[in-house]
Amino acid sequence: MANKLVLHGLSHSRSLRIVWLLELLGLDYQLIQHQREKTLFAPESLKNIFPLGKAPILQDGELTLAESGAIVDYLIQTYGNGHFMPKKEGVQHYWQYQRWLHYAEASLMPFILMGLVFSKIEQVKQPFFVRPIAKKISQKTHSTFLNPQVQLHLSHINQVLGENKWLMGDEITGADVMLSFPLQAVHLRYDISSFANIQRYLAQIEQDSAYNRAVEKAGKPLNNS
Amino acid sequence: MANKLVLHGLSHSRSLRIVWLLELLGLDYQLIQHQREKTLFAPESLKNIFPLGKAPILQDGELTLAESGAIVDYLIQTYGNGHFMPKKEGVQHYWQYQRWLHYAEASLMPFILMGLVFSKIEQVKQPFFVRPIAKKISQKTHSTFLNPQVQLHLSHINQVLGENKWLMGDEITGADVMLSFPLQAVHLRYDISSFANIQRYLAQIEQDSAYNRAVEKAGKPLNNS
Repeated sequence: MANKLVLHGLSHSRSLRIVWLLELLGLDYQLIQHQREKTLFAPESLKNIFPLGKAPILQDGELTLAESGAIVDYLIQTYGNGHFMPKKEGVQHYWQYQRWLHYAEASLMPFILMGLVFSKIEQVKQPFFVRPIAKKISQKTHSTFLNPQVQLHLSHINQVLGENKWLMGDEITGADVMLSFPLQAVHLRYDISSFANIQRYLAQIEQDSAYNRAVEKAGKPLNNS
Repeated sequence: MANKLVLHGLSHSRSLRIVWLLELLGLDYQLIQHQREKTLFAPESLKNIFPLGKAPILQDGELTLAESGAIVDYLIQTYGNGHFMPKKEGVQHYWQYQRWLHYAEASLMPFILMGLVFSKIEQVKQPFFVRPIAKKISQKTHSTFLNPQVQLHLSHINQVLGENKWLMGDEITGADVMLSFPLQAVHLRYDISSFANIQRYLAQIEQDSAYNRAVEKAGKPLNNS
C-alpha cells in the first residue's frame, strides 16, 4: 500500500468503531489518539486536521474523510474485498445495510446525546433552589420524550437481532460496527434487561478478537465502561 | 416502470427533501402525506409502514427504505442516470459527497433538535417560580453548548459554499438536498446574517423549480416558514 492509513481518533468516543473496523480488515494504519478537553469537547489539535475538529477523521493519501458512517462505507468498499457488506447486486439487502449505516448516528444517537446533556444539567453546580427544579425538568424530559423514544428504538433493534446473529445475517458487517457505540452508550444509562437479543449482541461484540485488539490500542469506547 | 414509487411523508418535516428529489429526478411517484400528532410525534399510521414510525419512508416494489440519507443515495444511484452525484471513479469527490449525505443528519441536525427541545422546555406550562429557572437553564445550554456548536458548523458550511454554487460544484447533488432542511431549520432560529454564502444558498434552493413543485405538493418544510 502506497499510503499508510491514518486515523485521528478521540479517547473514549465513537472513534473506537473505526479502530475496530481497521482491525477487522487487517489493515496497516497509524492511530493518532487525541485527548478530550476538560469541557468534553474535541481538542484544537483536531481542528488542524479538519475544520469541525470532530473525530474520527480518516486520512488515506489525498483523501481526508469525516463522518463515521462514510468512513465505514469507504473502508469496506475500498479494502473489504467483498467482505463486511452485502453484495451490491442484492439490492434489497445492500440498501438495508446502507440504512443501518445512516441510522446509528442519524436516528439513534441524537436521543442518547440529548439524554447525556439533560443529565449534565442535573449535575451542574447551581444554587440550592435551582437544583431540584433542574432535576425535575430533566426527569420530565426523559419520561415524556427521551425514554419512550429510546424504548421504541430498542424494541425495533431487539426484534431485528432476533432474526440473525449480526444485523445483516451470519456475518458481521459495517452495520454492526456502526450500531455498536450507540448500543453500548444505551447500555450504560438504560435498563436493557428486557432486550435479550441486544444483550447477547453486546456480549458478542466484546468477544470479537478484532474488537479486543481495538480496545487495547485505543481504550474503551465509554469512560465508565 | 413496473412499480410506482410510494413516499410516506410527514407534514412540515424533513420528508420534503425526498419530495424535492423525486421532482428533481422527474419520477412518477405517489405521495402519502401523514399528519403529525398533537404531540408533534409521528402518527401511528406510519408505524404500520415501518416499526419506528418515522418519515420519510420510501417504497419501491419489494424495498421499504428508511433514513433520508439512504433514500437520497438510493434514488440517485437507481434513477439518476449519473446526475445529482459525483462520478464514483472520482474517489475523492464521491466520498466527500457521501460525507455530506451523512453529515446533515448525523452531525448538524442533533444540535438543532436539541435546541428545539430546550426551547420547548421554556414554553411548557409550569408553576410561576419554575418558568424563569427553566428559561435560564435553556439559555445557559444554548450559550455554553448549542450556540457555539451551531456557529462552528455554520462557519464551516459557509466557507465550503464560498467555493461553489452548490456543495459539490456547479451542479446540484443529493448533498444539497440533504443539507437543505437543517439549514432551513437553523435559519428559523439563528441569526445567519454574517453567513452570506448560506443566505445565498438558501435563496437558491427557494428559487429551484423542482423545490417549488415539491412545496406545492407537500407543504413547506417548517411550520413557521
